[in-house]
Amino acid sequence: MNLKGIKVTWLGHATFRIETPGGKTVIIDPIGKKHDPATVGIFELCTWLEKKGVKQINPMNKGGSLTLGDIKITMVHADHSCGILDGDQIIYGGEAVGYVIEFDNAVKIYHAGDTNVFGDMKIIHDLYAPDISMLPIGDRFTMSPREAAYACRLLRTNTVIPMHFGTFPLLTGTPGQLQKLAPDVDVVELKPGVTVS
Amino acid sequence: MNLKGIKVTWLGHATFRIETPGGKTVIIDPIGKKHDPATVGIFELCTWLEKKGVKQINPMNKGGSLTLGDIKITMVHADHSCGILDGDQIIYGGEAVGYVIEFDNAVKIYHAGDTNVFGDMKIIHDLYAPDISMLPIGDRFTMSPREAAYACRLLRTNTVIPMHFGTFPLLTGTPGQLQKLAPDVDVVELKPGVTVS
Amino acid sequence: MNLKGIKVTWLGHATFRIETPGGKTVIIDPIGKKHDPATVGIFELCTWLEKKGVKQINPMNKGGSLTLGDIKITMVHADHSCGILDGDQIIYGGEAVGYVIEFDNAVKIYHAGDTNVFGDMKIIHDLYAPDISMLPIGDRFTMSPREAAYACRLLRTNTVIPMHFGTFPLLTGTPGQLQKLAPDVDVVELKPGVTVS
Repeated sequence: MNLKGIKVTWLGHATFRIETPGGKTVIIDPIGKKHDPATVGIFELCTWLEKKGVKQINPMNKGGSLTLGDIKITMVHADHSCGILDGDQIIYGGEAVGYVIEFDNAVKIYHAGDTNVFGDMKIIHDLYAPDISMLPIGDRFTMSPREAAYACRLLRTNTVIPMHFGTFPLLTGTPGQLQKLAPDVDVVELKPGVTVS
Repeated sequence: MNLKGIKVTWLGHATFRIETPGGKTVIIDPIGKKHDPATVGIFELCTWLEKKGVKQINPMNKGGSLTLGDIKITMVHADHSCGILDGDQIIYGGEAVGYVIEFDNAVKIYHAGDTNVFGDMKIIHDLYAPDISMLPIGDRFTMSPREAAYACRLLRTNTVIPMHFGTFPLLTGTPGQLQKLAPDVDVVELKPGVTVS
Repeated sequence: MNLKGIKVTWLGHATFRIETPGGKTVIIDPIGKKHDPATVGIFELCTWLEKKGVKQINPMNKGGSLTLGDIKITMVHADHSCGILDGDQIIYGGEAVGYVIEFDNAVKIYHAGDTNVFGDMKIIHDLYAPDISMLPIGDRFTMSPREAAYACRLLRTNTVIPMHFGTFPLLTGTPGQLQKLAPDVDVVELKPGVTVS
């Protein structure tokens, strides 16, 4: 995995911190609102976040791109539901999405979000050709290693960082299972809190 | 249609009762909550059902699988909306889904749910290869026989049980229309309440 | 662009008025409820519109078709979220959709709605073969010209009317960019309020 100066830290589940050579920090699937960050999300989620006090929202929708500093973010499809549990109410949060993020060193990372495999991952390859794909493998609430191996073929990806596994016992998929089913792919298992670069 | 000991009863619209050789009863798209059944659904629907008094919920999401006794259930995509009419409110019920159910005799049945045809039915074939596909054909609120014939090609299915037709006059599609458009497929028209095995 | 007697007027953003040789007027993505029009939409949106006083609702869902007079309307997939901003609440409006409309002179127009490119545009070609495709190109909240060029290949469309661009500064995509990326397609740029026929 050649990150060309990028530092990636898995913060557990589907959350990653990515530090760019240019000094930017990107948190995908973030867990707080400290530091008043520029926040990107689908329209409905941003509207909800704004009500909760998040200030710098950047709403967008699938197929759209935006640039924050020298980082280009494209919102892509994910095959998953998107309810927000707000107290005891389910709020419609828009549609589940993934992101292709192009960093200032030209490295492109695809974070699939919570998702099943879907055929349009081929379009993500054809249009954006990400260098690294972060794919859920836990099963039950996302695809398992079996579907993720199919996703690797659609994405023609060389490098996969598995996520959304092991957080609680129902999530049974493992990186080893994916590696066995996708022997040509470099499955990079990160340890939570440990930075790779 | 070789069901290898499984008994299938169409209860009308999209609802089926399936009895397994091992003595289990599965109701797909159920209409009641008697008998305190183990209930499988997408996260948002399960949350709503739990509020309504359903006790044994098993929430999951697309691409995930779970096992109940000796029955394996995989949740797959459907192309349809998923509002729940609760009094005069529309509640977000998550996303519409289908299921691939693998029974204890290794027979796999794909219940497509309410849906249009979608290209990822090819992935359902490639990954799960269901023996029997239950497809909506009624038109207006789901695909019609025309789209269902296309679905048969994607699924490479030998046997189709049509559903979601004839319930009310707007649902005009018929099994005969599908059979004409998909001559190589065995279109099995069930009569509501009559068990086949 | 041969419209065979149809008159098309872009009313801005994603809204079009289409007048048929037979004297019907179709407004896609309408902006008012004067004249008590027959209104077509997905089930959840129609339920909401009915509460707001729209009388002639015709609810349907993806893959379904209906006929109004001599106009046939098929609802198809779109890849976008579908929240309705109602006061300060986000209401679940069902799923985003597109339409294939077949007019009394046999011309078929595909209005993609707000959407990203998606692989099932190939199915829209295979099943309905629209003569003209109205595609969003604005970027940020829909696909940009880059994704739209990919959509043209899936749809094998000869004629594209771009929409959902230029309405406000964030929508940066232009018809010229699409024409450059899809040189074999006739990209027809309409001027708001000017009728073509």
